[in-house]
Amino acid sequence: MRNLKLILAYDGTDFHGWQRQPGLRTVQGDLEDAIARLTGASVSVNASGRTDAGVHALGQAVNFQTPSSYAAPVFLKALNAFLPLDVRVLEAEEAAADFHATLSARSKMYRYVIDNAEISDPLFRRYSLHIAHRLDEVAMHEAGRALWGTHDFRGFETNHPNRTTSVRTISRLDVFRDGRRVLIEVEADGFLYNMVRAIAGTLILVGSGRREPGWVGAALAAEDRRATGPNVPPQGLFLVSVNYRDAPGQGQSMSG
Amino acid sequence: MRNLKLILAYDGTDFHGWQRQPGLRTVQGDLEDAIARLTGASVSVNASGRTDAGVHALGQAVNFQTPSSYAAPVFLKALNAFLPLDVRVLEAEEAAADFHATLSARSKMYRYVIDNAEISDPLFRRYSLHIAHRLDEVAMHEAGRALWGTHDFRGFETNHPNRTTSVRTISRLDVFRDGRRVLIEVEADGFLYNMVRAIAGTLILVGSGRREPGWVGAALAAEDRRATGPNVPPQGLFLVSVNYRDAPGQGQSMSG
Repeated sequence: MRNLKLILAYDGTDFHGWQRQPGLRTVQGDLEDAIARLTGASVSVNASGRTDAGVHALGQAVNFQTPSSYAAPVFLKALNAFLPLDVRVLEAEEAAADFHATLSARSKMYRYVIDNAEISDPLFRRYSLHIAHRLDEVAMHEAGRALWGTHDFRGFETNHPNRTTSVRTISRLDVFRDGRRVLIEVEADGFLYNMVRAIAGTLILVGSGRREPGWVGAALAAEDRRATGPNVPPQGLFLVSVNYRDAPGQGQSMSG
Repeated sequence: MRNLKLILAYDGTDFHGWQRQPGLRTVQGDLEDAIARLTGASVSVNASGRTDAGVHALGQAVNFQTPSSYAAPVFLKALNAFLPLDVRVLEAEEAAADFHATLSARSKMYRYVIDNAEISDPLFRRYSLHIAHRLDEVAMHEAGRALWGTHDFRGFETNHPNRTTSVRTISRLDVFRDGRRVLIEVEADGFLYNMVRAIAGTLILVGSGRREPGWVGAALAAEDRRATGPNVPPQGLFLVSVNYRDAPGQGQSMSG
């Protein structure tokens, strides 16, 4: 069996998230169906992480075992021919036998996009959260510094506990303005369930002037979901890239 | 009766075009329904031009007569509250009594967007035409110069004749690359039915190396729809702005 790695981009709007579910359209379901159609063999695909319904990806990484002898570029072209246009395979390559898209991931980067203008952009509504009042993105960035580094992020996790530990390391958290848009970018070694959406909801309270920047550190320390901000909706969230650099048996991937 | 002018932006994907049609969702229908809901009076709205199904607008201009005494900013806020999120009112203002969005328009600017990369962008498929092979945008721009100025454009009109004359004046036609995208921008005093889509289809033949740049002038001179390129699909087309500068009883509008 060969081990193949793919990089995917998708528009999450019309999917019920990544994970295959009976009777619902999901990215995993569409991808596994396309691979099975190409290879004639049923397949189980691992992703770097499961994106929720409505969440988009610019560089989702996946892998799967296949008995097929088609070269990787044939997989890329054929899968793009079989897949619907809201999901695309950007890259396909042979991976080491021990590469696992979930377990080998060293870090991931997410982006949350806010359309921050009085009147929403009708051509961007599927890809952003609209906030009409002016956000203070500098205060949001300063407030986010309290989340840098290694902490117990259970206060930013929905339905805690989901994993053996809720300690994660944020290596980068930047908030900045790009014209009418405010972007929140978070890179970490791993993410708890809804963690980016809770971080964004927390920082938006600061950017709206409803909380002081210093409140975020106290909210983190409380280790209680009720102490932090609300989850923001999924359509502003993008999985930008997955980093496997220095991971065993794997090169680098920083798509998107 | 007052005469109000609005500037609209809309995502044309889920509309059957501008013009009201029984049983179909159209921008005119949604807007007239929202105005009627606000004012309690049925209304007929004029647009600078009818966009086809799937065509988007960044700065469509419209006007309507109303007995309502609500101030223009109230119209803006209330209509945006009543309208679905894929159409927004960007501006609302009092217009001179003789202002007519169709008849007073001095020029309009359209943009056609091509996603010109080997693998299409799944998050941009509603707003572009994907062309996988590399286009020569410099050759397209040079070829487009043959269309500058005043000509009989019947060779770029679907179902000619639709109007009393097919002579129009193109004041600007630029083709340029913005990263993976190639944009065609055309400004003219008026447009024939499907004229921008036929111009784009003609220039794409040049950009693809299937025709020499000099062919476009000959195709124009033939004054025959069969001599020019095919209509490209609607989802790449944007009505960017309508110019009423120097028109009787009207100021300037260059939104979008």
